[in-house]
Amino acid sequence: MPVRTVGLVGGGVIGSAWAARLLINGIDVRLYDPDPDLPSRMDKVLANALRAYRRMTLAPVAIRGELHIADSLEEAVCDADFIQESGPERIDLKKALFREIAGHARPEVIISSSSSGLLPTDMQDGIAHPERVIVGHPFNPVYLLPLVEIVGGEKTTEETKCRARDFYAEIGMHPLMVRKEVQAFLADRMMEALWRESLHLLNEGVATADELDQAIAYGPGIRWAFMGPYLTYRIAGGEGGMHHFMSQFGPSLKWPWTRFDGPDLTEELLNRVTEQSDDQAAGRSIVELERQRDNCIVSILQGLRVNDNAAGRVLSGYEEKLYRISHDGGRKGADLSDLDLARPLRLHAGVVPPEWVDYNNHMSESSYLQAIGDASDALFQLIGVDEHYHEKGLSYFTVETHLMHHSEITAGQSYYFETQILDLDSKRLHIHHAMHAAADDRVLATGEQMLLHVNTRESKSCPADPLVMGRLEKIFDGHRHLERPAHCGRSIGMPGR
Amino acid sequence: MPVRTVGLVGGGVIGSAWAARLLINGIDVRLYDPDPDLPSRMDKVLANALRAYRRMTLAPVAIRGELHIADSLEEAVCDADFIQESGPERIDLKKALFREIAGHARPEVIISSSSSGLLPTDMQDGIAHPERVIVGHPFNPVYLLPLVEIVGGEKTTEETKCRARDFYAEIGMHPLMVRKEVQAFLADRMMEALWRESLHLLNEGVATADELDQAIAYGPGIRWAFMGPYLTYRIAGGEGGMHHFMSQFGPSLKWPWTRFDGPDLTEELLNRVTEQSDDQAAGRSIVELERQRDNCIVSILQGLRVNDNAAGRVLSGYEEKLYRISHDGGRKGADLSDLDLARPLRLHAGVVPPEWVDYNNHMSESSYLQAIGDASDALFQLIGVDEHYHEKGLSYFTVETHLMHHSEITAGQSYYFETQILDLDSKRLHIHHAMHAAADDRVLATGEQMLLHVNTRESKSCPADPLVMGRLEKIFDGHRHLERPAHCGRSIGMPGR
Repeated sequence: MPVRTVGLVGGGVIGSAWAARLLINGIDVRLYDPDPDLPSRMDKVLANALRAYRRMTLAPVAIRGELHIADSLEEAVCDADFIQESGPERIDLKKALFREIAGHARPEVIISSSSSGLLPTDMQDGIAHPERVIVGHPFNPVYLLPLVEIVGGEKTTEETKCRARDFYAEIGMHPLMVRKEVQAFLADRMMEALWRESLHLLNEGVATADELDQAIAYGPGIRWAFMGPYLTYRIAGGEGGMHHFMSQFGPSLKWPWTRFDGPDLTEELLNRVTEQSDDQAAGRSIVELERQRDNCIVSILQGLRVNDNAAGRVLSGYEEKLYRISHDGGRKGADLSDLDLARPLRLHAGVVPPEWVDYNNHMSESSYLQAIGDASDALFQLIGVDEHYHEKGLSYFTVETHLMHHSEITAGQSYYFETQILDLDSKRLHIHHAMHAAADDRVLATGEQMLLHVNTRESKSCPADPLVMGRLEKIFDGHRHLERPAHCGRSIGMPGR
Repeated sequence: MPVRTVGLVGGGVIGSAWAARLLINGIDVRLYDPDPDLPSRMDKVLANALRAYRRMTLAPVAIRGELHIADSLEEAVCDADFIQESGPERIDLKKALFREIAGHARPEVIISSSSSGLLPTDMQDGIAHPERVIVGHPFNPVYLLPLVEIVGGEKTTEETKCRARDFYAEIGMHPLMVRKEVQAFLADRMMEALWRESLHLLNEGVATADELDQAIAYGPGIRWAFMGPYLTYRIAGGEGGMHHFMSQFGPSLKWPWTRFDGPDLTEELLNRVTEQSDDQAAGRSIVELERQRDNCIVSILQGLRVNDNAAGRVLSGYEEKLYRISHDGGRKGADLSDLDLARPLRLHAGVVPPEWVDYNNHMSESSYLQAIGDASDALFQLIGVDEHYHEKGLSYFTVETHLMHHSEITAGQSYYFETQILDLDSKRLHIHHAMHAAADDRVLATGEQMLLHVNTRESKSCPADPLVMGRLEKIFDGHRHLERPAHCGRSIGMPGR
């Protein structure tokens, strides 16, 4: 039977976020919490969740379920198709709540606890139909993070666990079936070990809260966002993989690298770890795993850069430096008098990288424009429109581009650009780039562009700096005598009509 | 004195990745490792690092430093301005290496060890100029992850630590100064606690390696990519913050939620944690922290979705479901008769991904063309120019594009396209795309394009298939009555001259 209505008992940080996830998934919610602040908290959490979902996906997101704030626990659970309890972490309270819930719920309805670590066996003790009790442990914010650990007690049936798994998957989660009932389950056991070690370090003055957070968020945490310790260490082992890693770092398991003792690294344990790690890798080579890892790290750093947060800030600062390096290491002191200004400028060349071509080895349209942008950058460096210039709030923006495709080039082949200044005034710069194949000089594409000199702080056009204008004019003094490419000033249309 | 040459001792997974980071940053590297496979490994690591950097940033990235593979340790270190040791984790080996390095290095040159946990006091023992010895502990892959922990020994001067910090920051890293010398420092102590707990769980058959990895990567790991445990728990405390969290979960510090004992939660420790957490939050409210957290989680999930990895896969599966939900109430099928052909077509919408913007959050020119290409693809799907059509050797190629930039959009913002057919014959298709901001409908950019129908096997133009022509003509019957955007047929030039 499909779940149409969920009864929620407890509406704190976890319960209210469950409500948001369910409502967005079109499920009606009946929520009970005696806290008088509940309605205003629900409003805030729903607003946050909707905001996050709308940023996350293009798919249309709306509150499709109906929220009913119940006056009693009975009202919340009596008609529910699934019940999720999110009360305080005290086993006496949980036991009392479960007894009361079980007394009002239909007998086949699953009662799941959000507990971070208490045992379902204790919660199902002495209640009606104990076989339908589980822990379904989510992670804050419940409306965004996919993980939910499913833990059964001694009397829980396999069928209950499977039904719960299917339900959680339906609302966008990643259910993880826990094989054995242990306190704090899997994730929280590992988190708690890390947390207790960090509290010792803080307690002994080795580091502050913020330093300990930095030690996670700028390094190991970035990997943990997509792979746990086993895959991480398999890759760390290099071509030797997990067995190599375990043999190399095995002895350190006995060193005081944390206060806590690991298990003895018996031959049996070593073999089990190696085997399970092989299963997990499923035939992917270390090189393949490294590339997947790097791709994910790059995407995460880029995502954090947009949010100006943690390691994303390091990246944006670093990029500024990369632009500076390219300036210094590039055409430094590219004295205009070194250049033959009676010809188009040759400032930029490159090799087509594999990511510019599609599966048919055709270079994508946007990559042509990227190459043209690189050629414009080379011209900018030459005329002094560089990082320092940008820091003054001055730049050239492209307002118009006319792109023509003449011939094709494939990955690994070399190209170069010829760049010509067509026209110029204090605010406008009209240029033409021709991209040539290095092998036979044939024209691959041309780009005619109009650039506008802008004050980026005021977002309006302004005259270029006299030094920049001086350099441009010197080049244009040569280029004004060059023949214009025939297609310049061309407009798109169907002349044959 | 600026560091121009770094001597690297050890070229395994860590040492070779140090070389890649340094070379990309324009620093010359002299690398010593007796392993005969070193040159081929260096090639692979450099290729991986360059690939990752080119995906990560639009800034120009190249190997700007010079790599010299040294025949002896002496040759690697004697002329170096900074030395990084990345040998095996054995203190007897480290001590021998440090003595040898110190004997050949200039006296003021910093000697840093990549050790994950051994003490710099042991490494500096009995060597010449011990005050310049530190640990500079990086994280794999060293060329991408920013964290480096800086740890001094008993004889290390503060000046050495500060110089090392400045150097690491120069090469794009996030140096973290460790206040007290303890084994395994900060990050690895916490990682090791988590790792040992996970090994116990595997050893006792509670979970497999893959399940334990899932328990990290689909939940807590996603948060750890940008915030450590302290900020995470502050937010988990809700409006009550850290004090509330610690009081609520304080008792569980004594519960067997991991095998390991935490410190006693004395009044003093509770106050210290609360105070340091307040310092860290620096006045940001819980609501503000929650939004920053949600923004980062969303960006990470989107980044992982692009890579079809871990929680990103959950998101893409979930989105299909969201579309199915909306589909029931939305426009079903792509039947032309469902479309209003008296208006431009709305076939494509999207959210600006982080990789389309530079560090100033400006969308790159080539990304506009990529978005326009996506809009063309949506039109192709509608008229039947799809995979099957391409398999017959038939396609439309863009021969000419006129692009105009009107307004800006930043990462995370939504856009949509309006697409209009301007003209049409059996071989040519003349179209206009307008890219709008979803927030306020303003025009961001327009692209006018001429497409040519081609036989891709013979590389020459040919008439389109009658079915495709029929669909195009039906759309054009509506669109021919639409007003042409004023800039269509425009050519680039300076009319004011």
